[in-house]
Amino acid sequence: MILYPIAHDFRRAMSSEFALIRRHFARPARLADLAAGDDAALFRVAAGMQLAVTTDTLVAGTHFFHDASPRDLGWKTLAVNLSDLAAMGAAPRWATLALTLPAADEDWIAAFAEGLFDCAGRYGVELVGGDTTRGPLAMTVTLIGEVPAGQAITRAGGQAGDDLWISGCPGLAALGLRSLQNSVRLADADQALAALHRPVPRVEAGEALRGIAHAMIDVSDGLAGDLMHLCECSKLGAILDEDALPIAPLVAAGADEALACRVVLAGGDDYELLFSAPAAARDALAALARKFDLALTRIGRLTEEAGAILLADGAGGSPRPLDVSGYDHFASLPR
Amino acid sequence: MILYPIAHDFRRAMSSEFALIRRHFARPARLADLAAGDDAALFRVAAGMQLAVTTDTLVAGTHFFHDASPRDLGWKTLAVNLSDLAAMGAAPRWATLALTLPAADEDWIAAFAEGLFDCAGRYGVELVGGDTTRGPLAMTVTLIGEVPAGQAITRAGGQAGDDLWISGCPGLAALGLRSLQNSVRLADADQALAALHRPVPRVEAGEALRGIAHAMIDVSDGLAGDLMHLCECSKLGAILDEDALPIAPLVAAGADEALACRVVLAGGDDYELLFSAPAAARDALAALARKFDLALTRIGRLTEEAGAILLADGAGGSPRPLDVSGYDHFASLPR
Repeated sequence: MILYPIAHDFRRAMSSEFALIRRHFARPARLADLAAGDDAALFRVAAGMQLAVTTDTLVAGTHFFHDASPRDLGWKTLAVNLSDLAAMGAAPRWATLALTLPAADEDWIAAFAEGLFDCAGRYGVELVGGDTTRGPLAMTVTLIGEVPAGQAITRAGGQAGDDLWISGCPGLAALGLRSLQNSVRLADADQALAALHRPVPRVEAGEALRGIAHAMIDVSDGLAGDLMHLCECSKLGAILDEDALPIAPLVAAGADEALACRVVLAGGDDYELLFSAPAAARDALAALARKFDLALTRIGRLTEEAGAILLADGAGGSPRPLDVSGYDHFASLPR
Repeated sequence: MILYPIAHDFRRAMSSEFALIRRHFARPARLADLAAGDDAALFRVAAGMQLAVTTDTLVAGTHFFHDASPRDLGWKTLAVNLSDLAAMGAAPRWATLALTLPAADEDWIAAFAEGLFDCAGRYGVELVGGDTTRGPLAMTVTLIGEVPAGQAITRAGGQAGDDLWISGCPGLAALGLRSLQNSVRLADADQALAALHRPVPRVEAGEALRGIAHAMIDVSDGLAGDLMHLCECSKLGAILDEDALPIAPLVAAGADEALACRVVLAGGDDYELLFSAPAAARDALAALARKFDLALTRIGRLTEEAGAILLADGAGGSPRPLDVSGYDHFASLPR
């Protein structure tokens, strides 16, 4: 649907672009009863399941550079949504893609589709529909998953005394961004750039945490800020152990300790899982970490004092409030 | 999630904008088990139902003028998706909104939310989640509905000999656009502008057509082009009766007959239902039209000859091929 009169040649170009998009995105329905090619996709939900739905947009110039690799973008636009479902303990199933393109560039579209389907195939997601429009480069994925009814892990289920855990290595993507921007020189930038460009959503771990984690959130906007969200929803406080923060991989990549501490707490774009679990679950979590070859680090605990987010250093001084005021959805990078 | 360093003041502005968005969009869950405020929304699907999902994006400068009324935009961004579900015979239930905004303008956001919730309330839809990002103005709604399993009305179910029907008055929105652009002077532009700005999706009629219509599509890109899509999916042809096309309301609004014929066949942005049904359903359809106070016009029939879309005039000459080549998603306005 384009409302405004456009030149004839341009319209012909758009028409062939549309065929091009169909060529790269239309695949036969596999999980769904009906995928692309009608007014809506149709699919069935297994009995006893609850649906989980999430949506995330990436906009050129805001979330990625205009010259970003389309293949990486295809991966990432789905991966960031997968991370949200993982944080509910839900299994991803069906996705729609709304893609806004400034021009019909077949190489770009082909590479984007390749990255998207790489990610979809890896996590068993079916692209069931979408919309392609002309305009400033942006992509919105809506992802629908299933979770056994009543078993989703929300942000609100935390209990005072729960251990706090973080998966993987938050801060790595922020380090990658700084390295791209030449504001830091890393001895080894590869891992940091990979974290930035092709984040690995913790889908299997998220599902495996059902019945173990009390509360969970995905850390996409910085550990400190997302911890605050979890605490708000659970009506609790938290105390983080500074010495326990997993900064070793950041230091190994070439960050000094001060920078490592800042990006581990306030770096964005990480897509790790932050969750609370009872102390009794420590063995189960160690086993889970081994099973998925995924670092799970115990970084603190939930406390009774609602809203108080504290940081304790190893020197035994009294814990100090963690400044999380600046860390929100629109402000994930450290100043 | 914003990757790139932004000035402190701007960040503070964004932070308050975020609160502002929550203020206008967050509502307590009603249909859903969990709506906004977690990593994903959760909801249950009734037993025996299939889910129908669709997504549509509106981009400033492509689908609407930058100074369009935010209240109308809020309505329309949901309405265009409702029309897609109506065309499947599905009942709309849950929606997500991905909203990309260039600036934090509370009046704009409040009016947009008002229009969106007007439409959501009218059709019983619950907004269960979303994402707000900064960038060029655009909005993507993903809408999920339910339909009794196996009863959705696809584009593919048409049978040779079926009557072809159209709801309402296609072409009116295109007339409204032309009037806005001063390319036509209408004696009465109100109805045409209303059709353009606040389209009425045929939700109840779409559901009531289950068990009656064989094939259905929503006419958003022009009657001729969408008829072609329906014929392609049903592997049939069609013959339209020129004299039966519902141009009277267009002429009444002030269009001459030639323009009325062009916009009825090739005008975009209409959101009417085009469907096929057996001749035996004529009485049922007359009753349905009365029940919903909605014009249903019989405009032709489906034929065996796959791909042949013909137009018969009242003079009794032989039907001529209808040129639908230019009418696709990206080219809905007549040249």
